[in-house]
Amino acid sequence: MYYETLSQNELAREFEEVKKQYEAFKSKGISLDMSRGKPGPEQLDISNDIFGAVTAEDIKSASGVDCRNYGGLDGIEELKPIFAEILGVDKSLVIVGGNSSLNMMFDTIAQAMTHGMGEKPWAAQGEIKFICPCPGYDRHFAICEHFGIKMINVACNENGPDMAHVEELVKDPTVKGMWCVPKYSNPQGIVYSDETVKRIAALKPAASDFRVFWDNAYAIHNLTEPDAKLLSIQKLCEENGNSNLVIQFTSTSKITFPGAGVAAQAAGPEDIVRLKKRMTVQTIGPDKLNQLRHARVFKTVDDVVAHMKKHAQILRPKFEIVLKNLEANLGGLGIAHWTKPNGGYFISLDLLPGFAKRTHALCKEAGLVMTGAGATYPYSKDPEDKNLRIAPSYPSVQELDMASKLLCISVKYAILEKLINQ
Amino acid sequence: MYYETLSQNELAREFEEVKKQYEAFKSKGISLDMSRGKPGPEQLDISNDIFGAVTAEDIKSASGVDCRNYGGLDGIEELKPIFAEILGVDKSLVIVGGNSSLNMMFDTIAQAMTHGMGEKPWAAQGEIKFICPCPGYDRHFAICEHFGIKMINVACNENGPDMAHVEELVKDPTVKGMWCVPKYSNPQGIVYSDETVKRIAALKPAASDFRVFWDNAYAIHNLTEPDAKLLSIQKLCEENGNSNLVIQFTSTSKITFPGAGVAAQAAGPEDIVRLKKRMTVQTIGPDKLNQLRHARVFKTVDDVVAHMKKHAQILRPKFEIVLKNLEANLGGLGIAHWTKPNGGYFISLDLLPGFAKRTHALCKEAGLVMTGAGATYPYSKDPEDKNLRIAPSYPSVQELDMASKLLCISVKYAILEKLINQ
Repeated sequence: MYYETLSQNELAREFEEVKKQYEAFKSKGISLDMSRGKPGPEQLDISNDIFGAVTAEDIKSASGVDCRNYGGLDGIEELKPIFAEILGVDKSLVIVGGNSSLNMMFDTIAQAMTHGMGEKPWAAQGEIKFICPCPGYDRHFAICEHFGIKMINVACNENGPDMAHVEELVKDPTVKGMWCVPKYSNPQGIVYSDETVKRIAALKPAASDFRVFWDNAYAIHNLTEPDAKLLSIQKLCEENGNSNLVIQFTSTSKITFPGAGVAAQAAGPEDIVRLKKRMTVQTIGPDKLNQLRHARVFKTVDDVVAHMKKHAQILRPKFEIVLKNLEANLGGLGIAHWTKPNGGYFISLDLLPGFAKRTHALCKEAGLVMTGAGATYPYSKDPEDKNLRIAPSYPSVQELDMASKLLCISVKYAILEKLINQ
Repeated sequence: MYYETLSQNELAREFEEVKKQYEAFKSKGISLDMSRGKPGPEQLDISNDIFGAVTAEDIKSASGVDCRNYGGLDGIEELKPIFAEILGVDKSLVIVGGNSSLNMMFDTIAQAMTHGMGEKPWAAQGEIKFICPCPGYDRHFAICEHFGIKMINVACNENGPDMAHVEELVKDPTVKGMWCVPKYSNPQGIVYSDETVKRIAALKPAASDFRVFWDNAYAIHNLTEPDAKLLSIQKLCEENGNSNLVIQFTSTSKITFPGAGVAAQAAGPEDIVRLKKRMTVQTIGPDKLNQLRHARVFKTVDDVVAHMKKHAQILRPKFEIVLKNLEANLGGLGIAHWTKPNGGYFISLDLLPGFAKRTHALCKEAGLVMTGAGATYPYSKDPEDKNLRIAPSYPSVQELDMASKLLCISVKYAILEKLINQ
């Protein structure tokens, strides 16, 4: 670490300088937010064709169903091949749902709790556990916490979760599941390597009701060309005699409208039957009109991929300005490292252990909201207090310029005040 | 019964005549369906303003929220007073959701199973029971069956459920809930009397986690003027110190579009906190754009009520032709009686005990699909095999004319063949 090479006097001078910069930001009375993986308004505008996509004159799906009325439990037919291709599965394994893939994940776990996945209900099996690659997505962890599922941290490197650790953990029959965001992960933006995907597909868990929850939220959300390739987990599972190992999820929330997109899930043949059986009791069907709007705008996956290029054009400069400021201000100091994602919605920033909470507080004090320190870990407890998630999608480039500079200054401030007071 | 006054010879002649009529229908090769409480296409057309109600230029809710984006867990503000008025509650007790009130009911019961309603999870309390006024709605019963909740039949007369029976049953602490369709009930079309509503609101169940599931699906769905008045259950509950006794549900499924309407639920102050807490984990929010479409078309409850008159105009002749044919063909014979609803979607037909399944089969054989015999009872078991549900909303008046005549002939056929063979 650079600061270790400085004398106490030099450190004091450095801190004074950083403090001055920090106070200058603070005095501006700014109000910035890099906390939410939320598309910005310009991104939403590129999907405005959705609004006129279905009119009163044209309310039937390709199979002739009046989409205004009841029916169609697993979604309209024309969307299935599109989601099937995105998820790398046969379209018979796809359920097209409402506006929230998170809701589908929650419901699937709720079903496993009360009705099991081919075995006794999870809730009737005493303590059960989930493997949580981390840093990860706080809402996955919140579902586990809600249902009292014990979470086990597994480190995630640039190739995905530490598979040796995962392979060891699944020998425990009380381990029932594993969260994965396999492509442009939240928050690291990494893509699971071919080897990682193959090893997951080949898992032989002790529990036959173990499931991998494969949240492919950023399946086609690349920032740079070419798009990273992720192996089809379902096909590999089938080759390994593991047809029902993985349940996949995705949505158009970050393709069209976050609040009014279309979500989908895919699962093995037995699980699909199980899921649909619950759905016959749970609902009369999804909003087919909104599905139809999407089907009208996107005839094929190619249409979706073309659409994603427009998102990338808007998002790329936002990531670039943040990464540029991180490099310019924290590069080479040995006090932080961060991911440089080629897709997704986040940058993961690792500080020296013990500095995430303080940095977060300093940002907040100066008017910058960051995702809560610890949020990227189960139970919101970052064991080393070092990870911060940066979400550059919503603010403007100008705001991000200021916000990321303030973040860097806050990082330095947190470390220097500690060194000074040692 | 009229047939009891006839000699065997007369019965045989009567049966020959009915058989001839039945065969004549059968030979027509008709295909009719009176099974589904599904609005017809003309009804859907009157809500086509929904399509243009929100455009790209006008995507903000009254409180300035971009409805395309994430957020807003309990729905947009402008819809809350409308649902609050329909359900007779303060708007702070309303959650505006997705397209399915059935889904909200399922989720609420799922939550009670895994997390309880202020007590231990229902699933951790051994056998629990629900009071099921019947005939009733098959999908309510299906939810109980799905979760292994034992159902107890309670008779429902023209004033609502047999309250003496209900008051007795709630003394059992394993009785955790009760289904109610208080207005224009499914399938009887009855409206709970003031006394019934007052007695429900005054219940003192042994179980503090007992809840009334008040499915007010047909709250403003009258066929005739004036609309029947239903007392506000929530206000009465509050007067009785029972603020958290009732959870209400409704939707615009039969106001605008069945598959793409807006559902809402209301509950007492403690339950609302409980429900919203689960929702923070379950979803990022409902489809606010579809809510906004509804808010644009309906500014006030009066707009909704005016809209319902158009539905009534379409539905009234459909109910009338069925009731006319029932009266003309079965009236005065003492072999059947039926309800004459002033609203809702159904007519309940009670035959002599033992004839519902056979009548249903005869209808089917001649090309008329009716709701399954037994479907209006828990476990699809009509203890007397006497009830059939008639759903006149979807077919045309002409189709209903034919279908209801065929139904009457099938009723007579079933009874006469039995009498002949005795």
